[in-house]
Amino acid sequence: MVTTNSSVNNGVNVEALIAAREALTQAPQAAQFKWRAACEWKDGTHSHSTVESFFGLGQEQHRKKTFAFDADHPEVFASEDHGATPVEYVLVGLASCLTAGIAAVAQHRKLQLRSVKATIEGDMDLQGILGIDSDVRNGFDGIRVHFSIDADAKREDIEALVAQSQKRSAVFDIVTNPTNVTVKVN
Amino acid sequence: MVTTNSSVNNGVNVEALIAAREALTQAPQAAQFKWRAACEWKDGTHSHSTVESFFGLGQEQHRKKTFAFDADHPEVFASEDHGATPVEYVLVGLASCLTAGIAAVAQHRKLQLRSVKATIEGDMDLQGILGIDSDVRNGFDGIRVHFSIDADAKREDIEALVAQSQKRSAVFDIVTNPTNVTVKVN
Repeated sequence: MVTTNSSVNNGVNVEALIAAREALTQAPQAAQFKWRAACEWKDGTHSHSTVESFFGLGQEQHRKKTFAFDADHPEVFASEDHGATPVEYVLVGLASCLTAGIAAVAQHRKLQLRSVKATIEGDMDLQGILGIDSDVRNGFDGIRVHFSIDADAKREDIEALVAQSQKRSAVFDIVTNPTNVTVKVN
Repeated sequence: MVTTNSSVNNGVNVEALIAAREALTQAPQAAQFKWRAACEWKDGTHSHSTVESFFGLGQEQHRKKTFAFDADHPEVFASEDHGATPVEYVLVGLASCLTAGIAAVAQHRKLQLRSVKATIEGDMDLQGILGIDSDVRNGFDGIRVHFSIDADAKREDIEALVAQSQKRSAVFDIVTNPTNVTVKVN
């Protein structure tokens, strides 16, 4: 029993995404994107970051608004907790990337979502970043994501949605595989 | 000529961090932290995430406030741009982590910072996430961070600050090295 209900609406314009895929297959140069942020130190461990422009489809793209983010360390680190910690931003990025992917794949598969909720948790041994034990890494030992999904779909179809979202997720790839980062001082 | 000016103040309580390092060296169990976020799908690729509690120093820690974040895809992806894209959250996390580290290391080395600004850019070939070319990864091909730092310090000391921040950065480690992520459906 495959449900193919054309009235399924998860708010994702799959037709536009399929058209984009076809267009970019013909013009791979337009698929080269550059994503950006700017960060300014405020005081202590507190910084203020902004996100606005990016490059893609062969040209600079400007948003109508600028997104702004404060980051800081919490009070237990003798900081002032002016914003989420940097590692929590990574968790937000990963959870939101998988969630957007679930909505897009569900639309493509004509499965109506009613609600999608995720909790995400990363384990960190602070002996790494504090330099206590050089065998302990600075980042997460591991990350667990739990989804609760209410949809007009069988459990196996919901599990397949989540699996396909992981397979196509940019942030899942960034976290699970190494990326080269160069840091320079102007 | 090493400057050891005790009036240096970058707003980082290095004494408290050193005391924490000593305490956690004696009690490594207290160094086991769990960082968290919760994410709820809104519509289309738009989601709303919150960050509040974490576990550390042997107990649940609750902040005085909840940090909230919208994530979405931009209009060129036929989305509504209700928030930064998930991959931009990763860039914010990386830039803010390195920036906090620079302030902490500068305080420890008694170097007065006047300003620290970073720009960060990640290259992405959308042929990956769109499934056009299976040889193209979903995430960033590479990330470049450029710091402009004004400080009472020689250029080589500033470069050493940035290098030490990278060495101790949780998010730098997360992005440059693989992390295990498990995704489950409740």
